[in-house]
Amino acid sequence: MNQSQVDTSKPVAVIGAGLVGAGWAIAFARAGLTVRVYDATAQVASDAIPWAGEQLTALHRHGLIAEPPEDVKARLVIAHSLEQALDGAAYAQESVLERAEIKRKLMTDIDAVADADIIIGSSSSGIQASMFANDLRISPRVLIAHPVNPPYLVPVVELVPSTQTSQKTIQFTDTFMQGLGQSVVHVRKEIEGFVLNRLQAALLREAWALQRDGIATCEDIDKTVRDGLGWRWSFMGPFETIDLNAPGGVADYANRFGPLYHSIARSRAADGHWDAELIESVERDRRQYLNAADLGKRREWRDERLMEFAVQRSKSADR
Amino acid sequence: MNQSQVDTSKPVAVIGAGLVGAGWAIAFARAGLTVRVYDATAQVASDAIPWAGEQLTALHRHGLIAEPPEDVKARLVIAHSLEQALDGAAYAQESVLERAEIKRKLMTDIDAVADADIIIGSSSSGIQASMFANDLRISPRVLIAHPVNPPYLVPVVELVPSTQTSQKTIQFTDTFMQGLGQSVVHVRKEIEGFVLNRLQAALLREAWALQRDGIATCEDIDKTVRDGLGWRWSFMGPFETIDLNAPGGVADYANRFGPLYHSIARSRAADGHWDAELIESVERDRRQYLNAADLGKRREWRDERLMEFAVQRSKSADR
Repeated sequence: MNQSQVDTSKPVAVIGAGLVGAGWAIAFARAGLTVRVYDATAQVASDAIPWAGEQLTALHRHGLIAEPPEDVKARLVIAHSLEQALDGAAYAQESVLERAEIKRKLMTDIDAVADADIIIGSSSSGIQASMFANDLRISPRVLIAHPVNPPYLVPVVELVPSTQTSQKTIQFTDTFMQGLGQSVVHVRKEIEGFVLNRLQAALLREAWALQRDGIATCEDIDKTVRDGLGWRWSFMGPFETIDLNAPGGVADYANRFGPLYHSIARSRAADGHWDAELIESVERDRRQYLNAADLGKRREWRDERLMEFAVQRSKSADR
Repeated sequence: MNQSQVDTSKPVAVIGAGLVGAGWAIAFARAGLTVRVYDATAQVASDAIPWAGEQLTALHRHGLIAEPPEDVKARLVIAHSLEQALDGAAYAQESVLERAEIKRKLMTDIDAVADADIIIGSSSSGIQASMFANDLRISPRVLIAHPVNPPYLVPVVELVPSTQTSQKTIQFTDTFMQGLGQSVVHVRKEIEGFVLNRLQAALLREAWALQRDGIATCEDIDKTVRDGLGWRWSFMGPFETIDLNAPGGVADYANRFGPLYHSIARSRAADGHWDAELIESVERDRRQYLNAADLGKRREWRDERLMEFAVQRSKSADR
């Protein structure tokens, strides 16, 4: 992490400076880039800067950045218009609201003012780029670059081309993101939810059904993952986990456990919707472990743990 | 971890001394218990002891046990018959082959010789206890205690009663396992695969389908989890993750993302079977990242990482 090797001769732009956009701004500035921060609501952009400063201080305290946090923060510059943000920028990351018509409007606006060679990544977490970025001058230079929050800590980024994205754009963004220290995943065809949220959806669907059917509480399901399944997944992922879990590797594993897993899958075939009653039940279950009033404090705890995790990751050999 | 507080005045028995049984033997001996190690194949039991010694040395090297490894190992005693293993034992953990008829035969044998108050935990990873442990004298004292491998590192254990297990047995095993330092999950009704393997099945099903459809490679799916999703899951689990991922907590999250997840779920409704062609394709995909000849070496790497993970866990506050 943080072995940044990006071309810092040109600035980059952050379009939409909420939590996701401001997170990207940190990842970019940490790598030495000048970041133009733009939001249609000026207050959002100006709030993002002190917030980023706090995060940078925490990163420095954990040893995750070597530079003085103020120096990194000084590379964040507010832009007062879209045009000003994009002028001369090599790359722009859009993180506006997750709605196709809003993203489409932004792409049209960018198309009107952007330089001929800027690359545009979208933080869309599920909406496919073909639904808002096609048939414009810039279309070959737009793709999805979907992060996990916060991108300056959790390295994965999903790159998903639209039907009109060029190979050159994918290649540029791959190199750029790796230069930032991100872990690049290539999603080769457009699909709802991409890879990350599809995997999360699959696990959550089973988790919610288990809670609904009174098999286990939310807390016991969480324990099963955080004190069990999640250990291997957090450094190997699901395929390497099973590849190492049968003497003959993944094919051996599939022959041993495929029938069980298929049978489990069949048992959920007609299942899935979370209705109001179920949501209320899960809410009640969770509130036994965490008061709604303590959500904020617990988020701070989570962010500290993510920083500790990032520190451990950066020390681990072979990753 | 390893804050063991168990009653060490009586021994415990390990029945079936393969990888799972030998792993349990370490968890028991580390807590100060004398462990009678029995396997129907005498060689398996005698091989288990030096193997356990090696693991104990590694645990000691990582600071995960304070006692000299030889002292812990000295509490592992080979038993030459089932009767000898069970004699005077407070608890027995069976880890014989995952087949209902083999487990049934063992339960009948135990029933014939066991003391009136011994509690018996089964390492079954998916077969329900009612399918092999009912209608015997010992039935109220049998339950599933399903570990993740290796149980001396990964703390989760699923306790699943049969239809005849007594509350007292569940309570005893809960206290006993927590005394060992395990993280106890209560599965309240019998269900195929229990909680852990059902969650794993759900995620793997989606992962295999994504590979099959050419959406992403195994390696990119693994990255998505190990560099993204798995971070939060490894210390919070899936429910706490989403509870903290929407301003208003889990109900707010469900209202925002429920429809997307339901739509993703529907897209896999008629899906699931891993056929020979798909298994071959995944095998080929994995072998690009890891030669079959290197599986063993990579397993050693994994075990070292799990130890590092356990060390970090034991240092982390608030868990």
